Amino acid sequence: MSAAGEFDLIRRYFHRPQLQSATPMALGPGDDCALLDVPSGQQLAISADTLVAGVHFLPEMPAAHIAQRCLCANLSDLAAMGAKPAWFTLCLTLPANDETFLQGFSDGLAQVAQRYGISLAGGDTTRGPLSISIQVIGWVPQGHALQRNGAQIGDDIYVSGYLGDAAGGLACLQENVTDTGYLAQRFYAPTPRLELGQWLQDKATAAIDISDGLLQDVGHILQQSRLGASLDVTQLPISQTLATQVPLAEQERLALAGGEDFELCFTMPQSWRAQVQDYSKQQQLPLTRIGQVEALSGLRLWRDGQAEVLPENLGWQHF
Amino acid sequence: MSAAGEFDLIRRYFHRPQLQSATPMALGPGDDCALLDVPSGQQLAISADTLVAGVHFLPEMPAAHIAQRCLCANLSDLAAMGAKPAWFTLCLTLPANDETFLQGFSDGLAQVAQRYGISLAGGDTTRGPLSISIQVIGWVPQGHALQRNGAQIGDDIYVSGYLGDAAGGLACLQENVTDTGYLAQRFYAPTPRLELGQWLQDKATAAIDISDGLLQDVGHILQQSRLGASLDVTQLPISQTLATQVPLAEQERLALAGGEDFELCFTMPQSWRAQVQDYSKQQQLPLTRIGQVEALSGLRLWRDGQAEVLPENLGWQHF
Repeated sequence: MSAAGEFDLIRRYFHRPQLQSATPMALGPGDDCALLDVPSGQQLAISADTLVAGVHFLPEMPAAHIAQRCLCANLSDLAAMGAKPAWFTLCLTLPANDETFLQGFSDGLAQVAQRYGISLAGGDTTRGPLSISIQVIGWVPQGHALQRNGAQIGDDIYVSGYLGDAAGGLACLQENVTDTGYLAQRFYAPTPRLELGQWLQDKATAAIDISDGLLQDVGHILQQSRLGASLDVTQLPISQTLATQVPLAEQERLALAGGEDFELCFTMPQSWRAQVQDYSKQQQLPLTRIGQVEALSGLRLWRDGQAEVLPENLGWQHF
Repeated sequence: MSAAGEFDLIRRYFHRPQLQSATPMALGPGDDCALLDVPSGQQLAISADTLVAGVHFLPEMPAAHIAQRCLCANLSDLAAMGAKPAWFTLCLTLPANDETFLQGFSDGLAQVAQRYGISLAGGDTTRGPLSISIQVIGWVPQGHALQRNGAQIGDDIYVSGYLGDAAGGLACLQENVTDTGYLAQRFYAPTPRLELGQWLQDKATAAIDISDGLLQDVGHILQQSRLGASLDVTQLPISQTLATQVPLAEQERLALAGGEDFELCFTMPQSWRAQVQDYSKQQQLPLTRIGQVEALSGLRLWRDGQAEVLPENLGWQHF
């Protein structure tokens, strides 16, 4: 490609109005930096993630689905802090200038950007093995962010939505990479629980999004809060689709360790139970109480009143 | 590696106090997001870049040098906006958990972070072909950022430092990847011209950092300012080292098109000439007047009063 190739490509696929959402920019992409105004009283929340072809997604997936998956996964980190999305940057590494891929990728990004109100502020395209790094920037009223370290003894432990669907969806996609069924969609277009995260401000004592698997992610809350917990495996929320497609033992394994569901797991004083139920009904979003925070360190899984030893290495392995 | 591998690795190599600099964080790495306070009256400046092994650096280079190169290149984008560095995020993709590499990489990052006052706020480590995406966040007093689009007819065009050294250094490193001579250093540890960028606020009419090569980068200023320019190739600042190691024609080619020097190129009304000279002396930083902005579109290269046609494709090719 000509020297102008990168700039033409960036302009065509990434300087589209569809990638600009509600939050304005003082200066958008196209200069050395973007310039952004943060409203006063707000704290920035930032997070960055890389998704590598063959590790985090199937390289043969439609480009729009790859884009959706990447941006939604990053938005989920904002949700877990109770933050409101504002801007993101995209570092896209591509083996070649594949216009079909770029068009699909740009369309997928645009769809998510419009839906969740986030604008592309800048980034970089480079040649190399397919991988995508996205950094999201949001904000949250100063001092009101949800953190991982505030869980208290006796708090209820909740999860949003259903667990294990994304892992089930990945299995579907491995059979048919263009599958657009319910489970496949839960893998490539997970729902960042942004409204829930904002609602949880000043209510939840700790929160995290489920990327590595419920057990690992609850473990992060407990470790940072220096406490333990019991979970009731019979309470794990399993979708009807997963329940009909997968044997019971496998449902449980996917729900506990599948990861990538990008649901929120949060701890809350028991006094909030009624409000949680109301909110869940209003929003038609399952919020399931799956356990309790305890003084005794470690994570215990219970079934029919029997504690089980926690099996090791049930989570997603990055390395 | 065990499931805990990524978290141990992140803690050991990236949660080091050496990677925390002057600018405090409300909440540093280790949660879903970092939380950051932006001083009032300041605008955020953000930029992101990916460096891929074999494309942007030699994979066999010492890890500390790879880290320096990546972070300095990103800081240079802040310099080109006149912004002050605050935080960065790091997405590191590695083929394997190589502790020697990680230690060296972390040390290289820490050295640059301390020197230029930037703190690591978060990021991600993943398995895959070696590549590094860094996003830098800085700030600049609201409305005072340097942009590319403000050049005026008659403005002088300046560059800082010397041109072509980084390209010369890359050639040295291709012969000996552990070379630490002057030219090699200009490749792996370029100097982001942060103080110069801040000094240029309210003086320069346009600025850019030289990453793609002088001709391409001047071209960006001219394109965004909708003007043309003449450059005097006999005025290109060439270091003594490059001048003694490389034939004249090659010096010129490297200075015009080598790229990756991360010097600043800026335009300024002629009335600032005396102040530029004074600043250059005080800082012992060459600031060389190499041309002038003109109404006639296009970029003309002059030598001894003769205009030459601008050869095509003299810049760095991303794709």
